[in-house]
Amino acid sequence: MNATAAVLYEVKKPLVVEEVEVLEPQAHEVLVRWAANGVCHSDLHVMTGDVPHPLPVVLGHEAAGVVEKVGPGVESVKPGDHVCSSYIPSCGRCRYCINGEPTLCAHRDKPRWFMLDGTARFRKNGRPLHHYLQVAGYATRSVVLEDGVIPIRKDVPLDLACLVSCGVLAGAGPVINRAKVPVGASVAVFGCGGVGLNSIQAARLVGAGKIIAVDVNRKKLEWAEEFGATHVIDASKEDPVAAIHTLTGGGVDYAFEVVGFQETVEQAFLSTRRGGMAVIVGICPAGTRLTIDPMLLVQQRTLTGSSFGAGHQRTDVPMLLDLFMAGKYKLRELISRRLPLAEVNHAYDLLQAGEVKRSVIVY
Amino acid sequence: MNATAAVLYEVKKPLVVEEVEVLEPQAHEVLVRWAANGVCHSDLHVMTGDVPHPLPVVLGHEAAGVVEKVGPGVESVKPGDHVCSSYIPSCGRCRYCINGEPTLCAHRDKPRWFMLDGTARFRKNGRPLHHYLQVAGYATRSVVLEDGVIPIRKDVPLDLACLVSCGVLAGAGPVINRAKVPVGASVAVFGCGGVGLNSIQAARLVGAGKIIAVDVNRKKLEWAEEFGATHVIDASKEDPVAAIHTLTGGGVDYAFEVVGFQETVEQAFLSTRRGGMAVIVGICPAGTRLTIDPMLLVQQRTLTGSSFGAGHQRTDVPMLLDLFMAGKYKLRELISRRLPLAEVNHAYDLLQAGEVKRSVIVY
Repeated sequence: MNATAAVLYEVKKPLVVEEVEVLEPQAHEVLVRWAANGVCHSDLHVMTGDVPHPLPVVLGHEAAGVVEKVGPGVESVKPGDHVCSSYIPSCGRCRYCINGEPTLCAHRDKPRWFMLDGTARFRKNGRPLHHYLQVAGYATRSVVLEDGVIPIRKDVPLDLACLVSCGVLAGAGPVINRAKVPVGASVAVFGCGGVGLNSIQAARLVGAGKIIAVDVNRKKLEWAEEFGATHVIDASKEDPVAAIHTLTGGGVDYAFEVVGFQETVEQAFLSTRRGGMAVIVGICPAGTRLTIDPMLLVQQRTLTGSSFGAGHQRTDVPMLLDLFMAGKYKLRELISRRLPLAEVNHAYDLLQAGEVKRSVIVY
Repeated sequence: MNATAAVLYEVKKPLVVEEVEVLEPQAHEVLVRWAANGVCHSDLHVMTGDVPHPLPVVLGHEAAGVVEKVGPGVESVKPGDHVCSSYIPSCGRCRYCINGEPTLCAHRDKPRWFMLDGTARFRKNGRPLHHYLQVAGYATRSVVLEDGVIPIRKDVPLDLACLVSCGVLAGAGPVINRAKVPVGASVAVFGCGGVGLNSIQAARLVGAGKIIAVDVNRKKLEWAEEFGATHVIDASKEDPVAAIHTLTGGGVDYAFEVVGFQETVEQAFLSTRRGGMAVIVGICPAGTRLTIDPMLLVQQRTLTGSSFGAGHQRTDVPMLLDLFMAGKYKLRELISRRLPLAEVNHAYDLLQAGEVKRSVIVY
């Protein structure tokens, strides 16, 4: 069978949108007809070469769709079910999953661009194409692991649901799961794009006190206020670390870095109080190294990070969709643009220009 | 009144043991007749200049003794009470103390070499001497803050009790309070001297599984085995990070760095599994900067540190003494040497030579 897919053949070159062949799902695999996939910086890092990846690859890892067919042994979903993609499949049986850390599942020890048997389900002219993060959501259909789909309620539009498959949970999860921000705590969020806005609205949701948004883009700071920031700092105009220490009298309880630059990670850490915590969400270019003063750690600051929300993706995704349906969590307001797959390269131009919260590619 | 004290007048020069004048305790201050003070690397850092400090200073911060006199308003101790020093006084009323983080008490925002009013209680030839960490335990008597003494039971010999005032709690606290190591977890301890041996025996006490001791000194690795290590790694002979990954199949759950070198902190962090935690206990020379790969953090590893056990010094010190008296915690075995104050410089030579677990200066 065939799909239309956006394929990266060479870094720093546009994606090629073309027909590709899709093989049948094998044991514990699922064929999904994707309805939408969000436009995320992680794909951009592969496109620019900042994060090296085997090529060619079908990108996209923030998808939602409808199960079309299941392979042998699949029991958790059936054709017609609505699903979000999980770019970190979780097996439920490894030391990490059993320990309540399914975002660290042992599946990650295998190559994350193939099925578990080490082969691809895409072909172009007989040549295999890699599956980005075992999702490959920039295709009208792809084969994914049964462990890599999350069943969701059917009353959420799929072009909204797809956002929860990465950006929403990646941004909200660190607040809810990693920091477990308590009521009244002070929070700083570095980076107010399509992921950071979710850290901000999660902080609002859990009742944080001061919610300080930091960015260099005036428009993003306005979005931050719409999503719940109580204070904004334009880091192109003033030193955010000094400003945060002044605002909080000694540093924030929790800082979230949602950019992926050495400088902003270090600033986030420096903006915490003694005993405070900085959580890295952004993906820095490969080879980045942080420069950290160990005395700040000995003063019981914590520096940590989050993969896909650092929680329990199979329950967190439905939970966030329930919050959305209950009117407690903004999804519609996250979307700036809906574009067809043919315009995927344009969507990344808009992302790089800082012009959008989140764009969604719809099929 | 007078005391015999060990005074540092110049870095890289021996301490001068001499008579000094001790002024009366003021409001909320306590005069203590010290019985013993342990020999710790933190004082050595000041003596070498690795950690700059105002001079002259009466060193010593790991002391135990008997209250001799109390200043106005002191109600929590009375003459005759046995006390341990707390080199991090805690007020009980600041945001940190109230939040259950008394080792971060707001007292730390003031100079830690004077009483709270910014003056000293020592004089030599009319000139004030600084109080190291508001303890100055290398003196037969000193004035300390009421918030800086911890009442203890009278049936523990003071030359043993003094060890809990720094090294014991500093080593055991990170295991118990910061990491809260659960039964069966895997643990690595980098540095098996007078502090690290306490991380090892705390790990044994809480029922850790693999307890991997790392040092470059064969004698220290033997001590580590006596204190509960299940595996030892001689880092002068093999790469401890690789060895730990092999032993644990992917890294330890918790690593404790009890040396204070950039290299060992980085090794401790690298030896953790995805989702693991490294806790820095050792004090690196001022100006040290760690080089950290942010991807290891995004994989949910945690890098943090501990001050004085990262717990609740006023209850943790008595708790550890109770464990000792119940036969569950080794204190006697920690002491290699007892020396008079006149031999304090020799005691630091022995420490630098790696010849001792802990020496204690007894008065």
